[in-house]
Amino acid sequence: MRIEELPTPAALLDLPRLQRNCAQMLDRVRALGVTLRPHMKTLKSIDAARLAIDPSHGGITVSTLDEASYFADAGLSDILYAVCITADKLPRAAEIASRARGFSVLIDDIEMARAIDQDGRANQRSFRVWIELDSGEHRTGLAVDDPMLPALARFCDQSQAIELAGVATHAGHSYRCRTIDEIAAVAEQERATAVGAAELIRALGIACPGVSVGSTPTALHARSADGVTEIRAGVYMAGDLFQASIHSCAEDDIALSVLASVISRKQDRIFVDAGGLALSKDRSTARTQDRAYGLVVDLHGASLGEVVIGDVHQEHGEVRGAKVDLRLGDKVRILPNHACMTAAAYDRLYVVEGDRVVDCWSRTNGW
Amino acid sequence: MRIEELPTPAALLDLPRLQRNCAQMLDRVRALGVTLRPHMKTLKSIDAARLAIDPSHGGITVSTLDEASYFADAGLSDILYAVCITADKLPRAAEIASRARGFSVLIDDIEMARAIDQDGRANQRSFRVWIELDSGEHRTGLAVDDPMLPALARFCDQSQAIELAGVATHAGHSYRCRTIDEIAAVAEQERATAVGAAELIRALGIACPGVSVGSTPTALHARSADGVTEIRAGVYMAGDLFQASIHSCAEDDIALSVLASVISRKQDRIFVDAGGLALSKDRSTARTQDRAYGLVVDLHGASLGEVVIGDVHQEHGEVRGAKVDLRLGDKVRILPNHACMTAAAYDRLYVVEGDRVVDCWSRTNGW
Repeated sequence: MRIEELPTPAALLDLPRLQRNCAQMLDRVRALGVTLRPHMKTLKSIDAARLAIDPSHGGITVSTLDEASYFADAGLSDILYAVCITADKLPRAAEIASRARGFSVLIDDIEMARAIDQDGRANQRSFRVWIELDSGEHRTGLAVDDPMLPALARFCDQSQAIELAGVATHAGHSYRCRTIDEIAAVAEQERATAVGAAELIRALGIACPGVSVGSTPTALHARSADGVTEIRAGVYMAGDLFQASIHSCAEDDIALSVLASVISRKQDRIFVDAGGLALSKDRSTARTQDRAYGLVVDLHGASLGEVVIGDVHQEHGEVRGAKVDLRLGDKVRILPNHACMTAAAYDRLYVVEGDRVVDCWSRTNGW
Repeated sequence: MRIEELPTPAALLDLPRLQRNCAQMLDRVRALGVTLRPHMKTLKSIDAARLAIDPSHGGITVSTLDEASYFADAGLSDILYAVCITADKLPRAAEIASRARGFSVLIDDIEMARAIDQDGRANQRSFRVWIELDSGEHRTGLAVDDPMLPALARFCDQSQAIELAGVATHAGHSYRCRTIDEIAAVAEQERATAVGAAELIRALGIACPGVSVGSTPTALHARSADGVTEIRAGVYMAGDLFQASIHSCAEDDIALSVLASVISRKQDRIFVDAGGLALSKDRSTARTQDRAYGLVVDLHGASLGEVVIGDVHQEHGEVRGAKVDLRLGDKVRILPNHACMTAAAYDRLYVVEGDRVVDCWSRTNGW
């Protein structure tokens, strides 16, 4: 099948670019002397995971229990659910762990460790647990100098219901950086936080096997991974316009795009059938190189100049920019601002090589 | 089941509010002397459609062929797909029409009428077709003085493959209004455009049975519907913060909310498990009364003061605003900026009355 035969809007995944992006990150992480635990929150597809998984690690990261369950169904075992878990999610987590023996969860509070301990006593079960650290983003995670950190490590060590997997942090503030030097500095902050916390825990006589860090920018631009055991990164697989604007990839590396059709052509305006739902309302490029709701390229992926989706309604996208010769029914591709947000609108990914559709991959959504 | 037993994030639909919103719009449209063709693009649920459908009309509006197919499966017949169709969507449209006899499509170009005619000749089939008009929003649709309009009407009249259902317009520019008088003026522009086009077509000796207008603001604030046969509106069922900010509803009328759990609590910050995917990245309230990514209310729906989701990551939402006493694991509800965008992240709607979950409705997504 050729791309132009697909119904629109549709999510296209360029296989050669995806393969290249996956291979390059694996090379990069190997050059740093560590292993990769790819984050599947962007593509949420087992076929993509198979390309991304580091053979010398085997594990993945996920952002929802739904993803964890999907990848457990597909036979993966070492799955880290990297959003702080709450007590009411433990029964579902335990069910997932019964299928994926290496399943692990993240916490940043001793109160949650107590809840896991209590759950474990009541139900004769245990969990693999990572302690989340704040390396400067100030999202979730404990500061390395928070007095709760040693108390939490001791509690985990003593609880029969907890196997301490290690410490983990995500330097999401790397997305605020605009130069590679700034990103490298954040990467060092991320590394130092995680390694410092692991040393603190080990100094208490407690094993801390895992030291997990990562974001796409810091994975790409870190100058050292000394003391780190694994790197987590995810959006690099697909790439997007925001990533391209902060030195994570070139626009030619972006593997995810939305196929759309011209549904209306007037003298002064053109609309396609990809709007706020098909593209998402993410405007992250507003902070870097503004591409409104996405960059329009031709059906084959070639540039049309600076043509963007200037405005969106629920199912309508307005094409704006350079004079472009598009007729009713013509098809274009739209490169997304933020691949994670855009991909989430689709329940399948059409895998393409050049203009041919070579496969259709399932993906999961929701929670 | 009680609300707090639901997994988070989850979409809640307050049944008494939904029922009230539906009843009020039906009363409103009856007072204008016309019928309602509710737009199902927000809730995309057959159960919601049953509450919204006007017994004296029976039809609905949809924004995707996926919705049309879902509602045809549920037994509805009079379904208007209100986004301009393209030639390659005709086979699927024909399949839907074989199940929903009253199915109709929208076009704004004689080129598309020719494509339908050609398809009809080749496949011995016909379509019910509405001509879309531009009443001032300048999205899709023909201007009433466009010379293509009479030519298109004549073509439709002469084609064996086209049954002209009427003319339709949507005054989406009502969303740019800030006062009720401004909205009433746009409503009159919407009405005059549709009625003027219908009169122009009838003056050619061509039947133009349907004169369809609508948006939630213009439906609520129009001062006349003379000459109109049906009003389309949709987001009023759920309501949202943006609608409340432009006089379409009160905040107490908002029927859709997202249930979320506190996943991290530090001295200076609180995070819940509803982020950019669970809430959408819609920022429409930035133009009116800014609520960042949504207004946080308590589990029971009661105000916590001006507390908002100030920032979102993919699965994290940061609670900001008035001092609020929330502990790890506590649950809150978040009122959305834009119900259509938020609802689209969910494959089911938990129907609630007070704190009780009384039902779970299916919804459809995608294209």
